[in-house]
Amino acid sequence: MTTAAGRKHRVVVIGSGFGGLFGTQALKRRDDVEITLVAKTAQHLFQPLLYQVATGILSEGEIAPSTREVLARQKNARVILGEVTDIDLEARTVTSALLGSTTVTEYDSLLVAAGAGQSWFGNDEFADYAPGMKSIDDALELRGRIFGAFELAEISDEEQARRALTFVVVGAGPTGVEMAGQIAELSNRTLRHDFRRIDPRHARILLLDGAPTVLPSFGERLGGAARRKLESLGVEVQLGTMVTDVDADGLVVKHEDGSTERIEALTKVWAAGVQASPLGKTLGEQSGAEVDRSGRVHVQKDLTLPGHPEVFVVGDMMALDDLPGVAQVAIQGGRHAAKEIAHRLDGKDPVGDFHYLDKGSMATISRFSAVASIRRLRFTGFFAWLLWLGVHLVYIIGFKHRVTTLLHWAVSFVGRGRSERAATHQQVFARRAMKQLGKDMRTR
Amino acid sequence: MTTAAGRKHRVVVIGSGFGGLFGTQALKRRDDVEITLVAKTAQHLFQPLLYQVATGILSEGEIAPSTREVLARQKNARVILGEVTDIDLEARTVTSALLGSTTVTEYDSLLVAAGAGQSWFGNDEFADYAPGMKSIDDALELRGRIFGAFELAEISDEEQARRALTFVVVGAGPTGVEMAGQIAELSNRTLRHDFRRIDPRHARILLLDGAPTVLPSFGERLGGAARRKLESLGVEVQLGTMVTDVDADGLVVKHEDGSTERIEALTKVWAAGVQASPLGKTLGEQSGAEVDRSGRVHVQKDLTLPGHPEVFVVGDMMALDDLPGVAQVAIQGGRHAAKEIAHRLDGKDPVGDFHYLDKGSMATISRFSAVASIRRLRFTGFFAWLLWLGVHLVYIIGFKHRVTTLLHWAVSFVGRGRSERAATHQQVFARRAMKQLGKDMRTR
Repeated sequence: MTTAAGRKHRVVVIGSGFGGLFGTQALKRRDDVEITLVAKTAQHLFQPLLYQVATGILSEGEIAPSTREVLARQKNARVILGEVTDIDLEARTVTSALLGSTTVTEYDSLLVAAGAGQSWFGNDEFADYAPGMKSIDDALELRGRIFGAFELAEISDEEQARRALTFVVVGAGPTGVEMAGQIAELSNRTLRHDFRRIDPRHARILLLDGAPTVLPSFGERLGGAARRKLESLGVEVQLGTMVTDVDADGLVVKHEDGSTERIEALTKVWAAGVQASPLGKTLGEQSGAEVDRSGRVHVQKDLTLPGHPEVFVVGDMMALDDLPGVAQVAIQGGRHAAKEIAHRLDGKDPVGDFHYLDKGSMATISRFSAVASIRRLRFTGFFAWLLWLGVHLVYIIGFKHRVTTLLHWAVSFVGRGRSERAATHQQVFARRAMKQLGKDMRTR
Repeated sequence: MTTAAGRKHRVVVIGSGFGGLFGTQALKRRDDVEITLVAKTAQHLFQPLLYQVATGILSEGEIAPSTREVLARQKNARVILGEVTDIDLEARTVTSALLGSTTVTEYDSLLVAAGAGQSWFGNDEFADYAPGMKSIDDALELRGRIFGAFELAEISDEEQARRALTFVVVGAGPTGVEMAGQIAELSNRTLRHDFRRIDPRHARILLLDGAPTVLPSFGERLGGAARRKLESLGVEVQLGTMVTDVDADGLVVKHEDGSTERIEALTKVWAAGVQASPLGKTLGEQSGAEVDRSGRVHVQKDLTLPGHPEVFVVGDMMALDDLPGVAQVAIQGGRHAAKEIAHRLDGKDPVGDFHYLDKGSMATISRFSAVASIRRLRFTGFFAWLLWLGVHLVYIIGFKHRVTTLLHWAVSFVGRGRSERAATHQQVFARRAMKQLGKDMRTR
């Protein structure tokens, strides 16, 4: 790959998640590169801890530092805020828009890491009643709903109180397991002394999944351990159960035996499926690359788009070897693309195929209890939780956030408080308003 | 005042601000009292630090602990969330509503401390373009707008960038002064290295007021000192200036000499006037008490409603002896009412007239610089700032919030970071949506 003499190699990165940010940082020392990171949010969201914002443990700032601040000292990188509305593979341009201002950015190399949003499996109307767990908006919305449900129960008649104290989490992957576990902690510990008429410990928490196991990607042993721990916290785990309808007051499920059941529940959390950014479709249409049902682009083994060696697709938007949609796949993908770009600029041999190094995965069930799978090792309980604590502290960006996060964890796990219960009126009412306007709050 | 034998004396408190919360806490040791605190937000908002949430220093949780959590150990108090829709002085009931659930609560004594909202002086249509500074919603909305304005400037043409980099704060009381000072700190220090095309230091920050001085309640000497400090930070202070129109792109002002001027500015902050809760009018209509133009109720010298010794009105809703709408007036008013209720239950002589003890007032201009007025003493600069720091740390509720707040202050004042820059999409777009729906985001 050659660059016109005297001009720097222009890299455009789409997305400020793990793939985009770590890809950008991997090019930090390249004086011959100028990077433009285009993202639709001004923050780098540490999604694995989103459930802690939703349940009042952490503030949104702690898990979402400003991308611009993170990259302030990286002089070869600029950040522009905007939603990418078009990628032109022919002209090699990316078009983005912010509040009516349109920006067209030219690239020599493109790293597409726009991630994935929640999928309601074709039932997008569910989203108003069962918000997803993908953005800060989602987390604050759910924070308002979860704490608000207890408030409503306190002043309601018995029937309404029962509905308000029933929480349904759809999807038994890590996010769903962590949400269900935290709602159980809230009702069993945090809120225990806070109410006078209701007993928060009587809250009913259901975790549903169509699959036959909890945490399927962790294997049967850890999935079983997670399930038993959840049940010991009072969470009802219903597997082989599909959601067929959702409304404001509850949902309808279909069990494995074909029977259907209506569950009255005010608060529903949707942690079930993902849909890659619509930019995947844009790339597929222009390049002929295959795009799967979840909107992910089938890339070459070196993470490039077929016929477009200058375009890399990484993270949750990428389909390759059934790799999961986890942070490490995105981080390593972003770094792989950066290394390949550097090799080309240096005239070195291509790095070649992307090899994912599975560093393991972990999920917390409750305080002091987690499951972790690292290479061939399996851990459960307190030791797994310590592993989780250490790994997450390392990956939280910025010393200041590490200190306050550790303090907030102490408040919540050693104590029984929640430092960040504050909710706005907007979180409670805005989604409904948006719906009436026909605007889609989900496509953020 | 007598209570039926065997029945506890029922106190209803409306509002979870300084008056309501401190009034409730003052009755902590009374076994013969049962208190119901009704509030429309689930939090006790520490309003004097709201500007720090708006400018990314603190999280909303740090200045807004859950009222329910604060009162969890006070066994004679219950909290119910809801907006008070009616007070019936005859039947001695308070009616509140939450998401369609209505609650009627009977009282023997009533403490009305519902506070005040922002006033746009009859121009409520200004609110969409110049949000107030009264709620967490306001602060997060302004956080999104302020940081978003720099983002927009970075990708705009020169004219739009100038508009995006012009910030107008209307109202030169403590909130306005603190906001203007913090926006100046943001542009001069925090964001200094964050952008590539724009120089945040070129931001234009205007502080407008119709009055002839900055911080009029602090006296001429401190007002002058505050003004000089603001000007040294680059804030343009325009006094004797009235706002006659506001729109999305700017505002029109009328200067003292009668000339008018249009200022192009994307971000406007309204910190100019207050309007007491509409419950003031309800009380006035039923009791015949005078209600002033700002909706405040003229109370008797013992803070009771004329003809209703069982009803106390305190804080920003109360008009008495020209007392200002500050936290200390509300705190002392709430405690006075609680003491009076206790005296009556004990058959003691009435406490009698409310005597406000002015503990002083203070406002920060920027890091390390404040003005403080305590009794006859006047302080400026670093010493006043240390006073401010100490007093605010004492009044922040909860040890955990004190520790993280101190850390966030260190990050922002010793360092140049802001830990809480995260904004949601809702904050940027919801207000507009609400407007279109004809819903009023201000009456929260």
